[in-house]
Amino acid sequence: MNILVTNDDGIDSPGIYALVHELRRIGNVMVVAPDRQQSAVGHALTVSSPLRAVQFHRNGEMFGYAVNGTPADCVKLGISSLLDIRPDIVVSGINHGANTSINILYSGTVSAATEAMMMGIPAIAVSLTSFSYDADMSAAAMFAKKIALQMPEMNIPAGTLLNVNVPTIPLEKVKGMRFTRLSKSMWEDKYEKRYDPMEREYYWIKGTYHAIDADGMTDDGALAEGYVSITPIHYEMTNDKVLERLRNSGVIPSVT
Amino acid sequence: MNILVTNDDGIDSPGIYALVHELRRIGNVMVVAPDRQQSAVGHALTVSSPLRAVQFHRNGEMFGYAVNGTPADCVKLGISSLLDIRPDIVVSGINHGANTSINILYSGTVSAATEAMMMGIPAIAVSLTSFSYDADMSAAAMFAKKIALQMPEMNIPAGTLLNVNVPTIPLEKVKGMRFTRLSKSMWEDKYEKRYDPMEREYYWIKGTYHAIDADGMTDDGALAEGYVSITPIHYEMTNDKVLERLRNSGVIPSVT
Repeated sequence: MNILVTNDDGIDSPGIYALVHELRRIGNVMVVAPDRQQSAVGHALTVSSPLRAVQFHRNGEMFGYAVNGTPADCVKLGISSLLDIRPDIVVSGINHGANTSINILYSGTVSAATEAMMMGIPAIAVSLTSFSYDADMSAAAMFAKKIALQMPEMNIPAGTLLNVNVPTIPLEKVKGMRFTRLSKSMWEDKYEKRYDPMEREYYWIKGTYHAIDADGMTDDGALAEGYVSITPIHYEMTNDKVLERLRNSGVIPSVT
Repeated sequence: MNILVTNDDGIDSPGIYALVHELRRIGNVMVVAPDRQQSAVGHALTVSSPLRAVQFHRNGEMFGYAVNGTPADCVKLGISSLLDIRPDIVVSGINHGANTSINILYSGTVSAATEAMMMGIPAIAVSLTSFSYDADMSAAAMFAKKIALQMPEMNIPAGTLLNVNVPTIPLEKVKGMRFTRLSKSMWEDKYEKRYDPMEREYYWIKGTYHAIDADGMTDDGALAEGYVSITPIHYEMTNDKVLERLRNSGVIPSVT
């Protein structure tokens, strides 16, 4: 199995290292990842400036390509230009911090998997609920490996990716894996207004997460109950019901 | 009607100016927009650095706030901190270049409308198919105004926004407006490999758009036939069918 690994925390993060270490047990791992932290970049693509890719070494060996771009850039550039082999699967992560609910729209980790999916390649995004840089990533890496191995059996159709979130609890306390839907939980974002040393004001975002329908069948709910959450994600963004109603409503505005 | 206008081409672009000019005829227009061009930023949010907002003047009068962030930042910061009045509607645009199909995921213009939708505010994204800086934006602005005026009548539910695309043809040749679904058209992206004056290689993205199911009932198809396209967009990203099947499949991997 040829596996492309990327992330949004940067090629030197602990999460991608743990993931690569584990996935090397089951296949040929290639790495193309951002050269620096890219949190909350969403599905951004670099179009107005050139991209560069440099070989990044770790422990004296070639670890992968570091790209001055976003996670989506890394997948696109890696597959279409940098790599000789087309990957059989793309695994993105391990992200520091959960990626759940509609908030996956903000996620660079998920966007990398989305880009792979758009290119017709099976894809998994993996996140650990802990934001700590020192968090133990080994259990999350192990789950990522298991899911990658079982993905063929899951028979995931083209246009759908798997979004995996792992709770930050000791491996022996994890109750299992659960297939879930996205919760309807939301960030309520506020901005702190501060003043710099020149007395000029600036704003810094400070969010609070509100669990809304976090029952055990949602991603947030499963995590809270101690399960690994696996959500099949697709992008069916046309609201067909509303479309149908609008077409029959006669409210289409006239041209003039 | 209190209207917040934003965009992704920057507060000094012709598109936002044409839009504001037209929307002032029907309401109180507030502007919060990026201080520079933000193409293909997707649903990015600035979390790791502070945001600043400065008053931007145009023709000797206060035009709006320029923010050193993304379109989604502008909506979030504008509504939660900068503006005294909560807008009744958010209109994002007019973008230089169409935003259709799954490629709306890359669009800063659409992401601004998405952010408003997530905050519970009716939202419209407006794009003109022309990439030309000198394109005539007046027809697109006029359509945006009409749609904003008729939006209450359309009875769009919470969680859904309207994505509007306008063909670049003279107003008298526009055949009408049409409610559409997102097409399945795709960019096929390649990278040009070039060498800088130091002989170091770099890559620049160069895409080709492939119309796949561009019949007249899709956004791309309606545009090609000379119609303004209006697509109701929501973010139902859980693949429920696959979820149901997976839950009943017995392929949930074991914990150990």
